[in-house]
Amino acid sequence: MASQILHKNSSRALPESSCCDDPLKTLSLELVRDTLVRIEDSIVFALIERARFPLNSNAYDASYLGNHRGHGGRSISEVFVRETEVIEAKLGRYQNPEEIPFFTDDLASPFVPAFNYPQVLYPAAASVNVSKDIWDMYFKNLLPLIASEGDDGDYVSAAAADLVCLQVLSRRIHYGRQVAEVKFSDAPQDYSPAIRAKDRNTLMKLLTFESVEEMVKRRVEKKAKVFGQDVTLNDKNNSTDFDGEPNCKVDPSVVGQLYSEWVIPLTKVVEVEYLLRRLD
Amino acid sequence: MASQILHKNSSRALPESSCCDDPLKTLSLELVRDTLVRIEDSIVFALIERARFPLNSNAYDASYLGNHRGHGGRSISEVFVRETEVIEAKLGRYQNPEEIPFFTDDLASPFVPAFNYPQVLYPAAASVNVSKDIWDMYFKNLLPLIASEGDDGDYVSAAAADLVCLQVLSRRIHYGRQVAEVKFSDAPQDYSPAIRAKDRNTLMKLLTFESVEEMVKRRVEKKAKVFGQDVTLNDKNNSTDFDGEPNCKVDPSVVGQLYSEWVIPLTKVVEVEYLLRRLD
Repeated sequence: MASQILHKNSSRALPESSCCDDPLKTLSLELVRDTLVRIEDSIVFALIERARFPLNSNAYDASYLGNHRGHGGRSISEVFVRETEVIEAKLGRYQNPEEIPFFTDDLASPFVPAFNYPQVLYPAAASVNVSKDIWDMYFKNLLPLIASEGDDGDYVSAAAADLVCLQVLSRRIHYGRQVAEVKFSDAPQDYSPAIRAKDRNTLMKLLTFESVEEMVKRRVEKKAKVFGQDVTLNDKNNSTDFDGEPNCKVDPSVVGQLYSEWVIPLTKVVEVEYLLRRLD
Repeated sequence: MASQILHKNSSRALPESSCCDDPLKTLSLELVRDTLVRIEDSIVFALIERARFPLNSNAYDASYLGNHRGHGGRSISEVFVRETEVIEAKLGRYQNPEEIPFFTDDLASPFVPAFNYPQVLYPAAASVNVSKDIWDMYFKNLLPLIASEGDDGDYVSAAAADLVCLQVLSRRIHYGRQVAEVKFSDAPQDYSPAIRAKDRNTLMKLLTFESVEEMVKRRVEKKAKVFGQDVTLNDKNNSTDFDGEPNCKVDPSVVGQLYSEWVIPLTKVVEVEYLLRRLD
């Protein structure tokens, strides 16, 4: 599969021929591409599952819980995310360098045995973090586009579905660190002058391939159509050719917009910020 | 959509013509059918997402955490489910009669405002619960069939994916209560003699429609193929005609087996047990 996929960042910095003398590096390039494509499926599934519920605005209203038991000033959604992250932290989720919590103030050290994750990131650059931007984008921009108006009372189920969306979007966007590391390792001479000059604009240009970004956008739109259709046993009803628009559970154009306006730009911000620290 | 769907339990007890004088009842029948079909998508998505991780058997090993902080004797998976359910209970998840926790011993009362869910279940029968059977089936039978051998250290992410699977399977199977209520309300004379005689075998026969069950099995297998395929921009690669077997992320035959061996039989157990209490 990987050989058919041109990741948006792969066409210049990741030529097929540059890595054949290093099996580990080959694996890493393939892994980055496959991971990004696979995460698209997870993102689309997560959005479809959140769209099962109406907006349920009480879940996001900080006044809804009142000042009960110290949670005053926080919504059901925020309490749910914070307390789930506390559990996940103590059980070891954030030992994995691919996972970044949204809230760090309440987190304790894990009490599970340490797992020896491969450390592929440059330590001085690994702390790049755009979680706040992802949080704001999700609740302010994306959620109103995928959830219909209404209230069915299932605030916790909606909040749990939100957390799945948030975690997978965070994993995708922060994977920009791995993308940047692979690109830098492959051609440090391409990036080092701009890094030393702290030239964000040049780095952003080096990381931008509009035709590939457009292809990614079209692919996630197609995934929204395929995964969001009503599948029946009548074969003729189900295809991915879509002469007409199928009855999709999440609007494919919104998934395309998510990628073009937020996921791809934020991933590139992560890549740029990572590269700026890559020679520290 | 609902009119095209013959739910496994609908062909005898839910004739189209029996409910037209009661708009609320009509809505309820459609809702039951649509809900069951929609949950199939959620189940397939959840299984595909769990299959991203290898088995990660340490997550299910009660000795892995040792006796740390009072969790001795419980696995990461069990601690994660129990503590998540504690959060979800206090935030109100189980006010919804469709949601049933796996562990009730640690749950506190919710501290959120009460939500006025429609009470469609017969109170004396609503407590039917097969959560223990679902838990055992999931970990003993299903999980080894969908997760490949191996260990990537992502125990909490795997446990979180398990919980999504468990919750949606529980919702599907316990929805047998709503199915039974609708069927009973529609034709109490069909069920009352067997209920009074406490005749489980006759009730099970009344609830069994093999051709419909076979159709449901084939539909979920198809959903596993459609939702588990690698979607590319090459249109010819993606269809649901499947002359050959696509590269599926979860084996469609396992999803079919899940339904035929566990989901449908356990749902019918719920229906029978509900009906047995329906005249109390």
